[in-house]
Amino acid sequence: MEHSRRGEDLPPWQEVATEKREREAQKIPPEWRLPEETLNRARELRNIAGHFLDGILDDKTRHLTNLDASILLERTRDGSLTAMDVTAAFCKRAAFAHQLNRSLIEIGFNNALKRAKWLDEFWKSHHHPSGPLHGLPVTLKDQFHVKGMGTTMGYVGWIDSFEGDKTSEIKYRAESELVRKLESLGAIIIAKTTPVQSLWYWETNNNILGYHQNPRCQNLSSGGSSGGEGGIQALRGSAVGFGTDIGGSVSMPAAFNGVFSIKPSAGRLPTKDMPNSSLGQIHIPTVVGILGPSISTLRHVFQALVSSEPWRTDPSVLPIPWREPKLPSKLSFGFMDFDGVVKPHPPIIRALRMAKAALEKFGHEVIPWKGPPIQEAAAIHSSIIRADGNFDVFLRLALSGEPMIPQLVPFAPTGQPQPPKTAIEVAQYVQNMMNYRARHLAYWQSTASKTATGQPVDAVLLPVATSAGLIPGKPLYHAYITLANLIDHATLVVPVTQADQLVDTFEKDYTPAGELDRRVWEAYDPVAYDGAPATIQVLGGRLEEEKLLAVGQVVVDALREYKSL
Amino acid sequence: MEHSRRGEDLPPWQEVATEKREREAQKIPPEWRLPEETLNRARELRNIAGHFLDGILDDKTRHLTNLDASILLERTRDGSLTAMDVTAAFCKRAAFAHQLNRSLIEIGFNNALKRAKWLDEFWKSHHHPSGPLHGLPVTLKDQFHVKGMGTTMGYVGWIDSFEGDKTSEIKYRAESELVRKLESLGAIIIAKTTPVQSLWYWETNNNILGYHQNPRCQNLSSGGSSGGEGGIQALRGSAVGFGTDIGGSVSMPAAFNGVFSIKPSAGRLPTKDMPNSSLGQIHIPTVVGILGPSISTLRHVFQALVSSEPWRTDPSVLPIPWREPKLPSKLSFGFMDFDGVVKPHPPIIRALRMAKAALEKFGHEVIPWKGPPIQEAAAIHSSIIRADGNFDVFLRLALSGEPMIPQLVPFAPTGQPQPPKTAIEVAQYVQNMMNYRARHLAYWQSTASKTATGQPVDAVLLPVATSAGLIPGKPLYHAYITLANLIDHATLVVPVTQADQLVDTFEKDYTPAGELDRRVWEAYDPVAYDGAPATIQVLGGRLEEEKLLAVGQVVVDALREYKSL
Repeated sequence: MEHSRRGEDLPPWQEVATEKREREAQKIPPEWRLPEETLNRARELRNIAGHFLDGILDDKTRHLTNLDASILLERTRDGSLTAMDVTAAFCKRAAFAHQLNRSLIEIGFNNALKRAKWLDEFWKSHHHPSGPLHGLPVTLKDQFHVKGMGTTMGYVGWIDSFEGDKTSEIKYRAESELVRKLESLGAIIIAKTTPVQSLWYWETNNNILGYHQNPRCQNLSSGGSSGGEGGIQALRGSAVGFGTDIGGSVSMPAAFNGVFSIKPSAGRLPTKDMPNSSLGQIHIPTVVGILGPSISTLRHVFQALVSSEPWRTDPSVLPIPWREPKLPSKLSFGFMDFDGVVKPHPPIIRALRMAKAALEKFGHEVIPWKGPPIQEAAAIHSSIIRADGNFDVFLRLALSGEPMIPQLVPFAPTGQPQPPKTAIEVAQYVQNMMNYRARHLAYWQSTASKTATGQPVDAVLLPVATSAGLIPGKPLYHAYITLANLIDHATLVVPVTQADQLVDTFEKDYTPAGELDRRVWEAYDPVAYDGAPATIQVLGGRLEEEKLLAVGQVVVDALREYKSL
Repeated sequence: MEHSRRGEDLPPWQEVATEKREREAQKIPPEWRLPEETLNRARELRNIAGHFLDGILDDKTRHLTNLDASILLERTRDGSLTAMDVTAAFCKRAAFAHQLNRSLIEIGFNNALKRAKWLDEFWKSHHHPSGPLHGLPVTLKDQFHVKGMGTTMGYVGWIDSFEGDKTSEIKYRAESELVRKLESLGAIIIAKTTPVQSLWYWETNNNILGYHQNPRCQNLSSGGSSGGEGGIQALRGSAVGFGTDIGGSVSMPAAFNGVFSIKPSAGRLPTKDMPNSSLGQIHIPTVVGILGPSISTLRHVFQALVSSEPWRTDPSVLPIPWREPKLPSKLSFGFMDFDGVVKPHPPIIRALRMAKAALEKFGHEVIPWKGPPIQEAAAIHSSIIRADGNFDVFLRLALSGEPMIPQLVPFAPTGQPQPPKTAIEVAQYVQNMMNYRARHLAYWQSTASKTATGQPVDAVLLPVATSAGLIPGKPLYHAYITLANLIDHATLVVPVTQADQLVDTFEKDYTPAGELDRRVWEAYDPVAYDGAPATIQVLGGRLEEEKLLAVGQVVVDALREYKSL
């Protein structure tokens, strides 16, 4: 009766979404279902990551899921842990995480456990692991195709279809190149995480799982577009996660959820056979990024993927092998905590200054960064990525009749796609981009005249976004992170501390630099942000991922020592 | 009186072009001017390169200008040759070449000799060369900006201006990044060579110097768009030359003039601060290519440029250092002499089969190549490079009122730019390109199952164009070479032999595969092509320039031995 009543009252897309949601929930074994009381308790907490989630897990699961990927891989390699042990633990934790935080849009525990069994049999027969990621449980943003799973990219109209085609022969059989690579290296995909409908926003929301809350601060957004992946990493529902990034879509969720991430330059990680918005716009390519609990995790996984020579199967990957970095003992950093246009909130400024103080304490050099205006980078970025008028969003919404999420409506004020730009207009935007890149590179090189070593800075410290997480619907200035996409540089997100209402007070007498600065400034609420992860960006050179990961480790080590002093 | 009479009768653009032509001619010192009798004799010859030109030079000039760049650099390095000796010799030879073949649109002998003097003084003070290209005389297609020179790109309206702006502050002062790099390495720019008006054609013609003839076969075209550079290399008017290539614009002139060339993948050689047609179209980027008399020349110059870390000053260059290649003793080659759509003329087929036989003779493996249809690659290529409707060509012609060269008229049947495509349409073309690249790469990798080594082929042997040179106005099928641009692979041009009317007879009983095949087939004239360079393409992997140069040397060595048997 319930079903038919719904059938009469609700639009069909809502039926489809509900059915999908319930179908996935059914994939959680009864013994992993949380009692209502626990769910209620969680609703009243601000932070459900860390202690709370650890506290409701059995010892074995808690222990295993708190191990870093580097340790897990060492133990699955030497046989002291089975893939089944590790996978079962992460599936259970992911199941708990999902019930608390609605982060999984596609659950694949059954296949994951089967695959773990197969990997264990492989180990027993061969006495060595199947690959460098043997038995490592991973989650993916719901943009990658995985055999046996669907892919929604946040659209109701993509449920039970191949990219909207319900009769496609490859429905539930398609596989993205990243997934092929991960599986060939021995990784195990356990679930896919909730993205923004269409991928085009920095707060995660869609009509399937709804608005995605930040598990570290449930009153805040988890960021986007890889918000579900940020959330599941904060909750340690997998050992490592993958998102995609065209303008901060990996970095912002990593930052908001207080985990590490790397957004590489284009051409390091495979993107073949991956659906996308504005597919074919490759002036600013969508790249695959990695999210995880440590630099070490990112490095292990990035190195394994690059060492598998992905350029042999994906023409968008450059034939650049893993290059073991050699860092000088003293590093130089550029530093920008405010671009003069929109000032980050106090917790972000404080996190940056902590990183600066920590690095200086350990003998590294931190000099002011005064590169080309990042606001200009953001404007050029927007002109390029929006040149097609986002027509595909409308086509995909029309598949199910679902509404556009409210976050996207301001980008489509007419309720229609914007007219696409012409090839002539786009070429002008690209020239603007190339000119900007040239100015940025010239400035970066010019820092050699300012450092003690006479070399250009090794990396730049700057904000990810203007806030530590985001109060839903409040303004955000994304130029600090969009810069990395416009110039195609590798960038890291490094958690530093957390917002503290007692320390990070509202600057009453601040005079805003402009209207957006005023709105962002006024949106700072020390109480609302209390406890939110305060995270920084460590921006590296183009295609310098190996070096940047090593530099990031230096930052982390310096911060750890500094905090313990 | 002569002047004012012209002023009344001729359109102003023709005055400007004549004045420019005469001004450049005046830069040739009187002692290097050829007597009318020599010019008349040259007009009656088919081939003015090699013996003829050598025969009218003094011994010293002939000797020096026939040395390979590797020898010249060894001697300017150890001081046994001065930069002045070498530069004077090449300037003289270039002056002769220009009078015989109208290949220089901008002459810079004076500055070149001054620079040679400076370099010699450098050597005397420091007892070592100023850089790895110390004293090497080079020529450039007239698309690069050189201080003290103008740049026309084949447009009358660009004479005495900066890219058409006659009042620009940087007129005669702009410098392209490649030029900066070359000069920082010690090279000496002696002249710039005639290109196609707008760069958009494979026969070189413009309203400044007129139609450019092939110096090896004066009844044929020198190819384009870097036709003047192909001609000057055939005549050895510089030690090495630079062109640009978006669809065979380096490879075709190299092939038609019987010299070597490399067209690298995008991202190895700098393109910053270089004007272009359709600037900002970077889906299929214009790349800088090198033309010269040997693989050794190409390798020396390419290695010097890459080793100068051009990515530090040009954001379009990838941070990939010179990688010393290690070849296996036995190589595997793919082989395609006919794609099933348009069959090359008999001299090209014979050149390919000679290369195959030579390689097989020396133990290398040559297997059939049956990759994705190259006709499809050419169609996608065209859709992308013409998406802006070539509007800039019309703007630039309008600067002077000069007419479009007849070769371009069929591309602009309305006499107006075509309407530009939208960003949505272009994104579809780019998806077509990415899909094509994926199929091509998959096929290339699949050859591992067909080779004796179990490895994919090291390179592919195929035609450059369908003819050895081109009878002006006759049809040409460019898919064999456009392929390399669409897939962004490095490719070499290797001269093999020359057309021989006694051997390369007309295949009367050939049944054409289609209309273009019929037209190309009918255009073969053994007498007209007799003596034309018969050249092949050696296609390498993406960004595998170092390996490809080594593979090319293997091909050359095998051919030399084979021919001497």
